[in-house]
Amino acid sequence: MSFINNWLRSDIQAINAYHVPPSGDMVKLDAMESPFPLPDDLIGQYLAYLADSELNRYPNPGAEELNQTLRQLMDIADDFGVLLGNGSDELIQLLALACETNDTILSVEPSFVMYDMIAKFTRLNYQGVALTKDYQLDLALMLQAIEKHNPKLIFIAYPNNPTGNTFDRVEIETIIQSTDAMVVLDEAYYAYAGDSFIDDIAKYPNLVVLRTVSKIGFAGLRLGLLVGAQETVAELDKLRLPYNINTLTQVSANFLLTEKAEINKNAAIIIEQRQLLLIELERVSGLTVYPSQANFILFKAPRAQELFDYLKENGVLIKNLSSAPKLTDCLRVTVGDNDQNQLFMQIVKQFYTL
Amino acid sequence: MSFINNWLRSDIQAINAYHVPPSGDMVKLDAMESPFPLPDDLIGQYLAYLADSELNRYPNPGAEELNQTLRQLMDIADDFGVLLGNGSDELIQLLALACETNDTILSVEPSFVMYDMIAKFTRLNYQGVALTKDYQLDLALMLQAIEKHNPKLIFIAYPNNPTGNTFDRVEIETIIQSTDAMVVLDEAYYAYAGDSFIDDIAKYPNLVVLRTVSKIGFAGLRLGLLVGAQETVAELDKLRLPYNINTLTQVSANFLLTEKAEINKNAAIIIEQRQLLLIELERVSGLTVYPSQANFILFKAPRAQELFDYLKENGVLIKNLSSAPKLTDCLRVTVGDNDQNQLFMQIVKQFYTL
Repeated sequence: MSFINNWLRSDIQAINAYHVPPSGDMVKLDAMESPFPLPDDLIGQYLAYLADSELNRYPNPGAEELNQTLRQLMDIADDFGVLLGNGSDELIQLLALACETNDTILSVEPSFVMYDMIAKFTRLNYQGVALTKDYQLDLALMLQAIEKHNPKLIFIAYPNNPTGNTFDRVEIETIIQSTDAMVVLDEAYYAYAGDSFIDDIAKYPNLVVLRTVSKIGFAGLRLGLLVGAQETVAELDKLRLPYNINTLTQVSANFLLTEKAEINKNAAIIIEQRQLLLIELERVSGLTVYPSQANFILFKAPRAQELFDYLKENGVLIKNLSSAPKLTDCLRVTVGDNDQNQLFMQIVKQFYTL
Repeated sequence: MSFINNWLRSDIQAINAYHVPPSGDMVKLDAMESPFPLPDDLIGQYLAYLADSELNRYPNPGAEELNQTLRQLMDIADDFGVLLGNGSDELIQLLALACETNDTILSVEPSFVMYDMIAKFTRLNYQGVALTKDYQLDLALMLQAIEKHNPKLIFIAYPNNPTGNTFDRVEIETIIQSTDAMVVLDEAYYAYAGDSFIDDIAKYPNLVVLRTVSKIGFAGLRLGLLVGAQETVAELDKLRLPYNINTLTQVSANFLLTEKAEINKNAAIIIEQRQLLLIELERVSGLTVYPSQANFILFKAPRAQELFDYLKENGVLIKNLSSAPKLTDCLRVTVGDNDQNQLFMQIVKQFYTL
């Protein structure tokens, strides 16, 4: 038996490493990335701006300028606090570390898999509460689970991934009011949704909101943020590792994220494309298409695995969820640009007429 | 009582947030940064290289190219594994998360403060073992502490921060052989030291080595690495958050860290400057200067706090450790370039002739 197998706790050994398959030159509609590259006329200015950064020095520890940039981009009120992380993942982990061992993280299922994974990493319990058959909150079941498991953290993705829908606002507010837990609304897809809980932070002291720039054109930056009451953020900040946001991320984001009009324009295009794609998918007989407030669409498809493979053979990569719990026969497609979406639809239609 | 004070565990609330004072336009000799900026003729090529990165896409999840770049820069054998983190801090936290709650991290004192901090963050015990009066390992005391506390992780900074010296190699090997713990040799300052434990990984399955590019000219990248047996790294990798190294860091490091000759040349200059600075400091009567294998020098100074303030008033920032445990009257100065070191020495001499 090797040293590490003897040394490492067995629940981590039992994990299969999260493997991202290489996508080569495929059209990537699998990871909720924005299809829009930086505009050419911006790249030159951006690089000139970056040229001044002193890479031999540590980053600005508080990243105050980036904090302001994000506040302006996302219209975050001055009296809320903002905490930055390397993607939302680092912030989910930080929240989990704020708990005591054996505290419980509660979320809904199906939802973002990292809530469960990070609970395991940080030695917390994880409790998943089933959504209804059409992926809505089951409020009675949620309240019952909260009563029974007394969670310390409740994660609700809004819109939810991988289902794409937003849950009922009144039901979410009922949950927030029913618990002593910190309720984390994960708004990774906020740019594509009609509603947000960010202003509700003023009303509910136990509410915090996660966001990221990954879905609005900057997945390569790995920049996430937590928004909450000033005093909440000040305390959580004690768990942040020093200099966690590097110089390149700070400088790049400070330049690129001030292009609010461009970012909003791109989001509007995706919302329009989502509507077109939804209509087109619904026209394919046999598919069940779920409503979406995000930049992806979940649909149930006959012979889902085969369709997934056929798309891949034809150069389009989407996400295959067909063997995941409660997602039998489901596939998830990221909304791309018009050409990508047309190509995707063409292959889907072709598959079902074979 | 506010929500967060009620919600957050009290040991975290009791922490004073790690505060990095603003350094303004001062000569920074406080943080072990390299004084050397990127060569002008490299910046243009670097930016051109960076222009091709697709920021709308997620980073390469495995960062394989960067892995190879670091292997070549640091002469890491092919049969060892390499795990990347946002600075060594993220890797120290990952190692701590691999433990069970209430496992013990053991280190020496004084040493790098993050071992203790991260033990707290991750709900582990921390045990510090005192160094001897002249900052050497107290082997008997170490072996006794290992026997008594049965640590899961032992951190030894080699060279040690903030003392600057390397411990006795034979004594370290004795410790590695005496324990079932994973022994982590933190070689952040490897570029300035005469010896390394990296090749000893082949001999000791419970040994891993941490390194970083922060002290060799790239503190702004926040890039650290753990080197260990392949199977050790493969298991620890399960605890790594997906896409933890962002695109900008990967692309920048892949370009900049291939400049091995330049990096080695700069390290050689610092080693030479360290020797000059050491001689100059020893000439100042009243100072006790400790030997250094790192890019900084620890010295004990009469009226240390006043000297620190005087340097600051005159535009030079060093690190004041004079009120830290076991470091009474001690100051730590980073070795800068010749001009910076001369300026520092001039102010020190001036202070003692006032």
